Formats: sequence, C-alpha cells, structure tokens
Amino acid sequence: MITFGVIGFGYWGPNLVRNFTIPGRSQVAVIADRDAAKLARAAERFPGTATTLDVEDIWSNPAIDAVAIATPVRSHFELAEAALKAGKHVLVEKPMTETVEQGEHLVDLAAAQKKILMVDHTFIYTPAVQRIRQLVRSGEIGQVYYYDSLRVNLGLFQHDVNVVWDLAVHDLAILDYVLDARPLAVSAVGVSHVPGACENVAYVSLFMPGDAVAHINVNWLAPVKVRQTLIAGSKKMIVFDDLEPSEKLKVYDRGVTLNDDPESLYRTLVSYRTGDMWAPNLPVTEALHTEALHFLACIEGRETPITGGDMGLRIVRVLELATQSMKQRGTPIPFPGA
Amino acid sequence: MITFGVIGFGYWGPNLVRNFTIPGRSQVAVIADRDAAKLARAAERFPGTATTLDVEDIWSNPAIDAVAIATPVRSHFELAEAALKAGKHVLVEKPMTETVEQGEHLVDLAAAQKKILMVDHTFIYTPAVQRIRQLVRSGEIGQVYYYDSLRVNLGLFQHDVNVVWDLAVHDLAILDYVLDARPLAVSAVGVSHVPGACENVAYVSLFMPGDAVAHINVNWLAPVKVRQTLIAGSKKMIVFDDLEPSEKLKVYDRGVTLNDDPESLYRTLVSYRTGDMWAPNLPVTEALHTEALHFLACIEGRETPITGGDMGLRIVRVLELATQSMKQRGTPIPFPGA
Amino acid sequence: MITFGVIGFGYWGPNLVRNFTIPGRSQVAVIADRDAAKLARAAERFPGTATTLDVEDIWSNPAIDAVAIATPVRSHFELAEAALKAGKHVLVEKPMTETVEQGEHLVDLAAAQKKILMVDHTFIYTPAVQRIRQLVRSGEIGQVYYYDSLRVNLGLFQHDVNVVWDLAVHDLAILDYVLDARPLAVSAVGVSHVPGACENVAYVSLFMPGDAVAHINVNWLAPVKVRQTLIAGSKKMIVFDDLEPSEKLKVYDRGVTLNDDPESLYRTLVSYRTGDMWAPNLPVTEALHTEALHFLACIEGRETPITGGDMGLRIVRVLELATQSMKQRGTPIPFPGA
Amino acid sequence: MITFGVIGFGYWGPNLVRNFTIPGRSQVAVIADRDAAKLARAAERFPGTATTLDVEDIWSNPAIDAVAIATPVRSHFELAEAALKAGKHVLVEKPMTETVEQGEHLVDLAAAQKKILMVDHTFIYTPAVQRIRQLVRSGEIGQVYYYDSLRVNLGLFQHDVNVVWDLAVHDLAILDYVLDARPLAVSAVGVSHVPGACENVAYVSLFMPGDAVAHINVNWLAPVKVRQTLIAGSKKMIVFDDLEPSEKLKVYDRGVTLNDDPESLYRTLVSYRTGDMWAPNLPVTEALHTEALHFLACIEGRETPITGGDMGLRIVRVLELATQSMKQRGTPIPFPGA
Repeated sequence: MITFGVIGFGYWGPNLVRNFTIPGRSQVAVIADRDAAKLARAAERFPGTATTLDVEDIWSNPAIDAVAIATPVRSHFELAEAALKAGKHVLVEKPMTETVEQGEHLVDLAAAQKKILMVDHTFIYTPAVQRIRQLVRSGEIGQVYYYDSLRVNLGLFQHDVNVVWDLAVHDLAILDYVLDARPLAVSAVGVSHVPGACENVAYVSLFMPGDAVAHINVNWLAPVKVRQTLIAGSKKMIVFDDLEPSEKLKVYDRGVTLNDDPESLYRTLVSYRTGDMWAPNLPVTEALHTEALHFLACIEGRETPITGGDMGLRIVRVLELATQSMKQRGTPIPFPGA
Repeated sequence: MITFGVIGFGYWGPNLVRNFTIPGRSQVAVIADRDAAKLARAAERFPGTATTLDVEDIWSNPAIDAVAIATPVRSHFELAEAALKAGKHVLVEKPMTETVEQGEHLVDLAAAQKKILMVDHTFIYTPAVQRIRQLVRSGEIGQVYYYDSLRVNLGLFQHDVNVVWDLAVHDLAILDYVLDARPLAVSAVGVSHVPGACENVAYVSLFMPGDAVAHINVNWLAPVKVRQTLIAGSKKMIVFDDLEPSEKLKVYDRGVTLNDDPESLYRTLVSYRTGDMWAPNLPVTEALHTEALHFLACIEGRETPITGGDMGLRIVRVLELATQSMKQRGTPIPFPGA
Repeated sequence: MITFGVIGFGYWGPNLVRNFTIPGRSQVAVIADRDAAKLARAAERFPGTATTLDVEDIWSNPAIDAVAIATPVRSHFELAEAALKAGKHVLVEKPMTETVEQGEHLVDLAAAQKKILMVDHTFIYTPAVQRIRQLVRSGEIGQVYYYDSLRVNLGLFQHDVNVVWDLAVHDLAILDYVLDARPLAVSAVGVSHVPGACENVAYVSLFMPGDAVAHINVNWLAPVKVRQTLIAGSKKMIVFDDLEPSEKLKVYDRGVTLNDDPESLYRTLVSYRTGDMWAPNLPVTEALHTEALHFLACIEGRETPITGGDMGLRIVRVLELATQSMKQRGTPIPFPGA
Repeated sequence: MITFGVIGFGYWGPNLVRNFTIPGRSQVAVIADRDAAKLARAAERFPGTATTLDVEDIWSNPAIDAVAIATPVRSHFELAEAALKAGKHVLVEKPMTETVEQGEHLVDLAAAQKKILMVDHTFIYTPAVQRIRQLVRSGEIGQVYYYDSLRVNLGLFQHDVNVVWDLAVHDLAILDYVLDARPLAVSAVGVSHVPGACENVAYVSLFMPGDAVAHINVNWLAPVKVRQTLIAGSKKMIVFDDLEPSEKLKVYDRGVTLNDDPESLYRTLVSYRTGDMWAPNLPVTEALHTEALHFLACIEGRETPITGGDMGLRIVRVLELATQSMKQRGTPIPFPGA
C-alpha cells in the first residue's frame, strides 16, 4: 500500500484524490491546501482523509511515500524540490516547472534521491493518444509529414502563464510521446489582447527532422471550442477530434504518390490516392486512472515513467524557447544540441 | 456593349466566358489558348465564339475592349502588359504577378494607358465576404483581435507556385478588403514534402496595427477539406465556414470583459460573456457575376475597382515577403514603410 | 425545512438526493432501497443520511414530509399510493404509472389527501424546453404544423417497458407542455427484434387539432445517438438538438407563403421564404434543481405543479393508446373525448 | 449506335440528353417538349439536336430506337404507352405511372412488344446504394432489423403528387433493390398544411418479413435538409448520409448480443457490442451515366433491367397503398398476396 499526500485541492486535486484511492494499492492520507475553504470542501467530499494548511505536515510525515502536486505552476518547483528532499516520490502537474534551470535541478535531485519524478501529462494516457503512438511508431502511417493542432476555446485566461504554457503544453507532450524525434528549432508568434496579461493567442511551429513540421494553434479567445489535430504521413493520415463523443480517431487511407518522371516539369508532380476511412474503437478508460496505476508501478520498480522528469524537462524547454521566439515575433530559435 | 477576349480556357476560363456573356452589356468575341484541345472544347461549348491559338489576334483586334486572363501565374505579367499596351482593359487571375516589380510596372502602365486593371480576387465578391466587411467596418464586432483561417484539403499540387500563392492568396485578399489596416510584418513557416516541389504546407502570421494578428494555415496534403475562418473582435466574433451549404456565417455575441481592478493580480483578469448566436441569411448570387458587372461599371467609369491593380500589388507584396520569411524559417520581415 | 425520503438508489436516486439537499429549504432524511449494496453506496456517498431496506420506515416516520420515488415503473403505483395514504407529498419518476386506471386512482387520492402529486418529467424544466414553450406560446413561430422527433441510440434495453414508455415519454411530455392542444388520435408502429422482449423500435404519430401532427421515432438499436426535434410553424421553424454542447436551439426564419391565386393549378402553390437563423443563448442550469425548487414551492402552496398528476396521467394515456395501436400495426386509436 | 428521343426538357431532361450522348454508343436525335421556351434552351445547349413541339414526330420517326421520358407523372402512362406501341424502348421517370392499373398495362405491353421498359430510379445506380446492396446481400450486416430514412428539406412543393410520391419513392426503390423481401403491409400517416394541396409531410411504415420494418419520414416543409438512412442488421449497422461530400456510408460494427438465459427476467436481456467504424471509399461516378450504359446493354440484349417495369410497378403499388393508408390515418393495408 502506497500512501499519498495530495497538495492543492482546486480543479484537479479532487481527481487525484479519487484516482489514488485504489483499494489494496494506494491511499491518500493527507490533503494540503493554503485555502481553508478548499480544505473544508475536501473534508466534506473525502471524510476519511486528513487535511492541513501546512505542507510541512506532509514532508515530516514518514507514513507518506509520495505526493501529487496540483498547484499553480509558479509553486511547482519549490514544492517538488521539498518533497524530493523529504524523500517522497513526486507526481507534479504540467508544465513541470517555470524554467529549464528549475527542471534540470529537479531531474538531478530525483536521481540523487533515487525517487520517482513524474509529470502529470494526462493526455498521454488517453486511449486515443496511445493508439496514435501505435499507428505512428508501427510505421502504419508511413513517414510523418506534419502534426497540426487546433486547440481553441473561450477562456479560461490564466494570469501566471501564457496560452502556450496552458494549452500548447498538451500538444508538445503528445508530440514528444508519439514521434521518435526531437525538434530542431521553434518559431512562435503570440499576441495579448488584454493589457498587462500574457499572450492569449499563439501559433507555434516546430521544425522536426526529415522535413516534418509541427504546428500548434492555441487561443483563449475563440467563439467556439475546437480540439482537432491532423497527423499526416506518407501512407495514411489521422484526424483526432477530442470533442467527438465516439470516433475520436479517424484514419484515412489517403495521400499522394510522387511521379519521379524528370520530364514532368509542366505536368502534375503528384497523383492523389483516396481509400477507405476507418475509426478504430477505443476503450472507455479514464486516463488519470491508467496514469495512477503506472505511477504506482514505477514506484514499485516495475515500470519506467512514460512522462518522467526528463520528458517534463524537454517540454519546458520547448515552452521556454517558444516564448523566447514570441518575444522576437517568430524569429526561429534552434534547440541546444539539435 | 463591351467586347471581351478571354485568354486561357482551362478550369476557370469557361466561367469567365459564361459570366461576361451578358445580353445587352457584354460579349466574348474570342477565346485564346495555346492548347488546340482546349480550344476544341471551347468551340463545342460556346459555338458562337471565335477561337485562336495566337493571342496576337486579340491585341490586334480593335473590336475587343477588354481581356480576361486565366492562365498560369507565370504568364500573367507578359499577357497583361501586352494587353494594356494594346489599349485593352484587363482582368487578370490572382495572384496578379509573380513579383512586386512586375506588379508595380502593370499598375503604372494601366495608369499611363488610362485603362482599368483589375485582379480576379473572386472571393471578395461573395455575399459572405461582403457581409463580413460590413460587420467589421460598421464597428459591430468592435476592435479586431485576430483573423485566423484554416484552408486545407488534399491537392491540387501546383508546380509553379507554392501553397501560399495558391491558397493563402484568398485570405490575404479578404484581409485587405475587410480590415482598414495594412500589415506591419510577416512571419511564415513552410515545408515541402515532395522533392523538387514548392512548399505544400505553410503557416503565415501577419502582425497588424493595434495588436491584431492574422494567421493563415494552408495545406495541400490534408485528409479532409476545411475552409474555416475565425474573426474575433472586442464585441463579437465571426465564424465563416465556406463549406456550409447555408449558414456560412455565424456571429457570436461572445467575448471577454476586462476587469480594471489593479488588485486583481491573483484573481481572474477577465470575465466571459456569452450571448446569442446569429446566422445572417445571405443572398444566393454567383460572385463572378457580381464581379463581372463591377468590372463593366469600372470600364464605363461609373465605379472604381474594388480589387484593382493597387490591391493586387499589395497582395503580391505579402506573398513575396511571406515566401522570403519561409526561406528564413519564420524570421519576421517588416513591410516597407510600415 | 421540508424533509424527504428518497426511494430507489439506482441511476437516478443519487441525483434526487443531491438536488433535494438545499440548505435552509429541504433535506433528505432517509434513503430506501431493497438492495443492500445500493444502500451501502448511498451511505458512502451521503454519510449524513439514514438508509433502510424497509420502505415502511418512511411511511411511519412523521418527520418526513415528502418522498421522491425513483424505482422501476412497475412499482410506481404501489409506492406512490402508500406514500399518499401515509400523508406524504409525492414526486414520482416518469412514466407515472403502468396504466391509466392506476394513474386516475393516484390523481384522485392526491386530491382527497390534499397532497402534491408530481411526476419527474425532468425535460420540462430544461432551459431549452422552457424556451421552446415560450417561442410556441407567444405565437412567434405561428401556427404549429408539426413536431418531429428522432430519439435513438444503442441501448439500454429495458425489460419491463417498451421503447415508447422509455424514450417517447420525453417527447410526449414536451408536446403536452409546449402545445396548447391535446391529441385527437394516435397511430403507432413498433417492432421487437429480441425474442421475448418489448418493442425496441417504434414510430408514434399523433393527430393534433388544426392539421398539426406529431411524430416520434424512438429506437434502442441505432448505431449512433441522435436527439433531434424539428418543430415547424407557419412563421418560423425550430431545430432542437439536445446533444449540441451549446446552440441546442436554432430558430429558422423560414417557411412558405401560400399563393391564393385560384388560377395556379399548374403553377407552384407556394413560395419559399428564407431568412436568418438565430440560436438564443440558454442559461446553464440543472433541470432537476429547477424542478426541485418548483416541487418545494408547490408543497408550500406558492405554485401549482407544471408536471402534476393530471399531466402525468395524460402522458400515460398516450402511452397506453400508442401501445394498443402498435399491437394493431398502426390502426389509429382515437382519444376518449377527442 | 442507338438513337434516342428525349421527351421533356425541364429540370431532368438536359441530364438525359447529356448522358445518352455517348460517342459510338448512343445519340439523341430529337428533343420534344410542349413548351417552346424550353425547346429554345435545348437548341442553345445542344445545337446539333433537333427539337419538336409535337411528340408524334418521335413516334413516326423510324430512326429513333428508344425514348427517355422526363415529364410530370400524370403524362407518363400516355407517353410510355404510345412509345411502346410505336416500337420504341422506353426509359421513364419515376414513379412509373399514377396507378397500379396503368403500370400493369405498360408491363404487359412492353412484353408483348418485346421492348425494354425501364424506370429511371437513378438512386439505384449510385455507388453508395450499390455498396449497401452488397453489404446487405452478402450477409455482412446479418439479419436486417430495420431501414429508417429521414428525407426532408424546404420545398419543392409538387402540385400533382404528394410528398410520398415525390420523395419516399427513392427509399422504396432502394428498399426493393437492397432487400431480398417484399413488404407485407403498409401503415402511413400524412398531413397537408397548404389548403388544397397534397400531403407535404408523411411517415410511411412498411412491415417486412421476419420482423423487419422500414420507416420513411418525408417532408417538404423542414428548416434543414437531411438525407440520412439507418440500416441495422444483427451483425452490423449502416449510416448512409447522402449529403456528406465523402464518407457517405459508415459501417458500424455495433449491435446487441442476446442472452438466452431463461432466468434473466429481471436482468438485462441483451448486452451491447461496440467495435470499429469503417467508411468504404466509393468511386466517383455519375449514377445516370451508369444507368444509361445499363439501359443500352438491356436494349442490346446483354443485360436485364435492374429497374425494369416490374420493379417500377412494385414501387407504384406501395405508393398507392401508402396513400390509401394515409387517407385512413395509418390503418394498415396488407399487400395483395403477402
């Protein structure tokens, strides 16, 4: 039985408590929050769980093996660092930290402490993304041409992070997980329409190896909610619509066939191929439950984190460079070592 | 009665012939094409109209007042120049020319010859775009925040122009027409997935005055066809879906209200407003017919071209700078004089 | 403070407990169910509420003012009758009873006992249906021509009632509430595809006064889920799509204009009118909460039940006659007194 | 070379002329219409084809082998009879005749004259319907449970036939072609909302062998256009949406599994099965072209009409009985011999 402390009881905290309450496997002993009103709600909803305003109660409690941190981004580093130093395994909300430097420090600290550091990139554990990875990695869609995501809606404006850190973070995690490649450079454009606030509209382009490109359009100020991603390969193409109640994934047997005729300067270079469309049936499972089981298995030494500190750090690096490019109006920023 | 020569009888030429055949107003006397097979089809479809392989027959024919040029982009300049020199009014397919230099020359020549030079940016004459302009220019949607267009499908690859010159050209014309503002700088990213071919995927961002931004996502290699544009203002937001058989325009009474409370650092800066949605009924008219009548009125001196050579030139300038930015992976290029 | 007993803790019971727990207005003192496992779940979810396997504990408890009954249809009559005899106000799930005779008895009993008898036709309390009624009753859509509903999905097969009693009951309640008219006759067709089971596909047509017609297509064996209703009037037409996350209602300014030219035998009798479409913004409220407040107000004598026993009885009568027509393959059955 | 006369040059006639103009196979020699204005348009569009106001010119012309009749329903019988008597093969618009008696006479006459009598049920020749038949007849969807079609839009009111004869005729032809079964009885409900006009809304239910049911909802007065058909079998289910530009057919691997446990009276009788969805790629061919080639092959003795007079007659019989049932408000009418 692995015992948890959950830190932060806002929007996401209750889901963490619920999903780490697994009879015979794990339990939540303490819920911490700096807001007494939130703790009152926690006590009402989970009457068997202790609550505390002081997170020190978690660090000092030897019965607690691991913590799940669901607080605003600006407190991630401090809390995760303290938890690791106190010898706890850590699951922290995405994005992992506010800076690459903080992220590197956490990764090193977790290694030194021999504790699991995992980032809650929940999307990675959805049946849809699991299936996309399988379609891509098996070679079924062929060489990847592009990943193009539209993730827009009305609200919720964040005040400590811009829309890239809030929404594009999902696509960056999916990209990292699905593709067997790291970005070479990033060009990003972003605009703020609220004086004094962060960018609420942004367009991020990632140059990938092999002429692949990733593009992410995120927006807090759109009249309609859209969650649509196109992933095209040389053999097949995927449309992922996360708002579809069923048929979230559609696989199109479509593409182009290149004509290698050198004489074809004035003729069409490519011909089109249109075949069947197929929507694989996806299991109905809660991603956070899958993730919770995976985190437990990692703590028990049976699995290696899919969304570990190293991946969390890669995502923070993209977020940092994208923000840097936004400040320079799209000027491309190469990745270190790429 | 204004008499036309139509040059180029490929995909678009037949539409020009049909729309310039207006009893009592205009007629098409000659159709020219360098391809005898196409002329044979022209003769079959329009038995009363002469055909010629030699465009000189048009220049030298004093009965011809005006020409409509529907040939590949690379021949636009040469044909339009010859037509103007021969004293004909000119309607030329978009984009007007391959370079800004060529465009400037045509604009000057038309002025010198006192002839109408108009570019066939057909989209401008659709009821939907006319209505969008009215919604924007009347102030009904408030201060414009962004224009965000997704214009993707499978094919048709062009070989002499990239996807920006082929598809983004529509959005650039709409932007030029709808907004009362000129872009300050452009950042564009594009990729080619066909060896030796032009970019088939591109993302163009335009920095506009007043923190407005325009973004255009164009793609010849998408599994599904999408024609969707979001235009958000401080008061209302528009969704323009050109594939909808009816309800192409939806106007959402949605947005944010800014809280000017300086104490609100840790509270939400904005609150959301959600009201009715409204889809104005649009007349069912053929845009090219509206455009043809407008061109005739311009020739007769009663109207000034909406899509004249000056506008065509502005579009070519954006296309040229966007292509330049693409070659530099998104590096922003300022507009001359902006 | 009005005190409730909730009977039946299956799918719907928890929602009743939650919605009748209104600080300062009403509370749930006891939850009854014949299944100990369900009571265990109730105790876990609502730790402050007593549970019992024996419904007699509710009848004999003088502190309980009212009951909410969420059991299978076959037990509605017996439980509601006992509750009324014990002097409790009653909210019972729809359909109210299995037969008209039972329904008449309950209505009479409630009157004799001077207790409120209300049926949980939840749909009536949704913002969408409230708005539809207002659009219809205000005359805005003109004379009603038809109500046409498609309500299909895969599952859940019921074993004690057919698909008409399970799904068409929603439309019958909406019709009763929205229109100021009672059906004249019913013709229904239904088929069972599971040996020994009730009809799982059915088509119910109601002849209404003034050449209006209502048609309800219900199906437990459809590959896709659809909840779409068309309501056409002489002036406007409504499309109600309950699966739309927003824009559930669309009002179309469309219709026909009759030509009263007696000479028009061989010409078109009607001309079409197409105007704007408009989607009114609907408040985001939980229907059951609205209904709970209304039930409390009825008990307190301040309001009269919208979905009282008399309405519940009218719905049961339609269900009974529709089932009778189904047994006779669509033979129309007139309504008594119509 | 087979030579045609085309009778009627309204909406559909031009398509017939175009599709029967097949170099080396067939040609249209004469177009007949009683309206001189329509003949003028015919002469303009097809300059090489003769026109006549007098249909006798066709009967008496020995060079004409076959006629295609695209006139209002009320003249079908008279024209087809005259054509057959004149020794011409006949393709006539659907529905074939106004009455069963007329239909029987034409079928007999064609047999006596040894001429081909075919009805232009164009839908049967679409790739979608061809594929549906293959999916049904191969047993891939299992035992057919139901066919449920929604075919509604705004307009066009006909004045000589009701909405069943105008729109349901498509579904009746599809049903006849797809299923290997004939209806046992029909129950239909219809209403007219225009004084003096035919029914503009109708619901037709067909009882088929083996507890299968077909239901057709047709409406000239709907705010939106819908063309959607559900076809469910014991193994798979089909959704046919004719307005989808691609993916017109979707095949769902969904259904129920029956539990044959006799003890399951109070438990669920069925369990649900949800698998992949699959949209077969359909060829892009014009149905009328396929039909024209088939008609030629029938005339040449190489094929037997798929939509011959016998099928046309079966459809007219259903239309006649459905209208009869409508007059009796849904009273079921058995089919002769069923």
